[in-house]
Amino acid sequence: MDRFTYADGKLACESLPLSKVAEQIGTPCYVYSRATIEEHYRRLVEAFRPLDPLVCYSIKSCGNLSICRLLGELGAGMDVVSGGELFRALAAGVPASKCVFAGVGKTDAEIEQAIKADIGLLNIESEAEFENLGRIAQKLDKTVRGALRVNPDVDPKTHLYTTTGKRETKFGVDIERARNFFVEYGQDPQCRLTGLHLHIGSPVYTTQPYVDAVKKTLALIDDLALLGHKVSVLDLGGGFGADYESEQSLLAADYAEAIVPLLQDRVAKGLKIILEPGRTIVANAGVLLTRVLYVKKSGDKTFAICDAGMNTLLRPSHYNAFHFIWPCEPEPPFVPTKRAKSMDMPGLVPIDVVGPICESGDFLAVDRPLPPLKRGDLLCVFTAGAYGMSMASRYNSQPLPAEVLVAGEKMDVIRRRETYEDLVAHER
Amino acid sequence: MDRFTYADGKLACESLPLSKVAEQIGTPCYVYSRATIEEHYRRLVEAFRPLDPLVCYSIKSCGNLSICRLLGELGAGMDVVSGGELFRALAAGVPASKCVFAGVGKTDAEIEQAIKADIGLLNIESEAEFENLGRIAQKLDKTVRGALRVNPDVDPKTHLYTTTGKRETKFGVDIERARNFFVEYGQDPQCRLTGLHLHIGSPVYTTQPYVDAVKKTLALIDDLALLGHKVSVLDLGGGFGADYESEQSLLAADYAEAIVPLLQDRVAKGLKIILEPGRTIVANAGVLLTRVLYVKKSGDKTFAICDAGMNTLLRPSHYNAFHFIWPCEPEPPFVPTKRAKSMDMPGLVPIDVVGPICESGDFLAVDRPLPPLKRGDLLCVFTAGAYGMSMASRYNSQPLPAEVLVAGEKMDVIRRRETYEDLVAHER
Repeated sequence: MDRFTYADGKLACESLPLSKVAEQIGTPCYVYSRATIEEHYRRLVEAFRPLDPLVCYSIKSCGNLSICRLLGELGAGMDVVSGGELFRALAAGVPASKCVFAGVGKTDAEIEQAIKADIGLLNIESEAEFENLGRIAQKLDKTVRGALRVNPDVDPKTHLYTTTGKRETKFGVDIERARNFFVEYGQDPQCRLTGLHLHIGSPVYTTQPYVDAVKKTLALIDDLALLGHKVSVLDLGGGFGADYESEQSLLAADYAEAIVPLLQDRVAKGLKIILEPGRTIVANAGVLLTRVLYVKKSGDKTFAICDAGMNTLLRPSHYNAFHFIWPCEPEPPFVPTKRAKSMDMPGLVPIDVVGPICESGDFLAVDRPLPPLKRGDLLCVFTAGAYGMSMASRYNSQPLPAEVLVAGEKMDVIRRRETYEDLVAHER
Repeated sequence: MDRFTYADGKLACESLPLSKVAEQIGTPCYVYSRATIEEHYRRLVEAFRPLDPLVCYSIKSCGNLSICRLLGELGAGMDVVSGGELFRALAAGVPASKCVFAGVGKTDAEIEQAIKADIGLLNIESEAEFENLGRIAQKLDKTVRGALRVNPDVDPKTHLYTTTGKRETKFGVDIERARNFFVEYGQDPQCRLTGLHLHIGSPVYTTQPYVDAVKKTLALIDDLALLGHKVSVLDLGGGFGADYESEQSLLAADYAEAIVPLLQDRVAKGLKIILEPGRTIVANAGVLLTRVLYVKKSGDKTFAICDAGMNTLLRPSHYNAFHFIWPCEPEPPFVPTKRAKSMDMPGLVPIDVVGPICESGDFLAVDRPLPPLKRGDLLCVFTAGAYGMSMASRYNSQPLPAEVLVAGEKMDVIRRRETYEDLVAHER
């Protein structure tokens, strides 16, 4: 669900035609819908209300300060995975007490930064990290709240690169090892192991992996209780899906329906739940606008060469990810009523939508059935709010694109387009 | 060949131990050897001297201003593929007359910028681009020198993503179509079609694809002459290899030995040759330094979690590319005498070298036989000078790394490390 809809044949973000954004801001350009972000956040909070969770927005999905600030004002905490993301959270006005810091590669400087900020929860990925954390906490003479990341060994059935809860990944420790971990470190007075953290992967389109992971973790919590260790925080991580195609993803209510019953009793007895949604909030809330520069036939293929490429949106090339792409102002027969890999419309032609980067891996879509395109057409790459701008690079010395936040018929540039001078600003 | 060698068991860049660079500049950090860049450039010029080519350094491989300036001072022109790269070339003091502008997705603004700068050669990728170019040249009342990019349909036997001279890619026009192109546009007074451009892919480890491509192109040049069109410039593109493993790549002299005899007569009769080397100059001239933050066993695997990841060097994750990785100061039995995928040394253990990014696709090496590693070890990722920093991103809000240029035992920071403030500098 999102607020990018065709009205009178023209694609608008909320009440603002996207052609207006492109004219004023230029392309390529990321455009976010404020109302969509708010609705996604509120639906999630509503669905999980029986658990009264702390909803920590996953900054890595889309870290723009204005978006963090918006979610912070709605009550969200922040899930950060680096010192840079913690900096963003604090700069957006979110208190450190509502931040959780995850990630396998925290540097000493980042751990210090987090401890000094009095972070809400530090997720711990290994024995080595715990010992390092303890050493730094001692040096700073501070107490830390830690959650052990547990690897429940469930298969989320998503891309290998974003599968993070199987046994052989770099993340967390397995369930058996978690017991020993608490035996070893569970009584540390300085670094207090008060929680468990899960994150099985992303995006996850069924509830069963969550159910399996939660059940395994609850069994662990009970085991630990018998050993005298109380787990008071359970961070379920993120991974909820988004609609890359229409109605592809479960709703927040669907995930909640499966997860809430497993945890409601525990919450009543004092267990605090944390959720870390990112993609499910912002993916559908953002699109990438790009202009067709040239249409070119080569061999049997037709290429629409656009001003956005793998530098702007890496996901198609890197994960072979599908993004629905469609003209913002198609001819009347081609106004779409859904978003799907296969669109049943007469007159579509297979087109490779590619970027300006000098390699064949620079594509947004391959052999995609599309209305015939021409130079100057404005294309919308949908569901680009998550892992779009946050993975963008300056490859081929392409300046980073602008970001725009739309509310109703108003827009704000929340990140200005880079200039050539910006590219070399830190060079001698 | 490069100037990164172990002396007394410690890895040095030229005469400077890399541990010193890491201590002073921090990690992750790209380090380049000035002497290696100079030697690679000179060997190429020497090898191809019979053709007296204009050697245009491919900025996209590594665009740092200091490196462009160094090569410019040695006499190189620049191969640019965007307005940003043209800006870099000019900022580095290279005259526009020695620049060639390639790329499938030149915007009108970029074309204007290039024409106003009086660029040496504009490579043209399609009929649509030619017409656009003509329109802009007319508007500006300027003459442009253009080279048609020809797609010789040879297989360079490299990664699909960097194969650029086969018929079905987005690049260039095929040989048959090139004839019609000249018939249609060859007499245009404003946009003068004076050249042909080839680029078959990168890296290319044999000479045969070049030989095939050059032969096909020479036949085309002869055909065009019969039709009354004189081709006075032949841009052979780039793609020469680098030593990701010891002695993996042909030498400049090997490529020259195959290519020079095909072209010497033509050059004597006035054909101007352009080469566009990038990787072959800078890949081996640069390394990435990264520090081991944690060593972690998980299941049967051992992970060395480092402070550089897919954000710093995308190639392993994106292209499944091999980079030799080794400790800068290994225990004496582990000082390497070559760089290879399989190192025959007793005592090596398989390790996944991974970064701090929150996804399983964040790796620099998988199951790589390495000396046992421990926290604090400094690792060198070799042959990282090309498509390293130029593809880096700020994913997970990781600031971009520093770049250092070493000459002898001196070092210069040629790009300072980003700060957290830099991450949000263009945001509201």
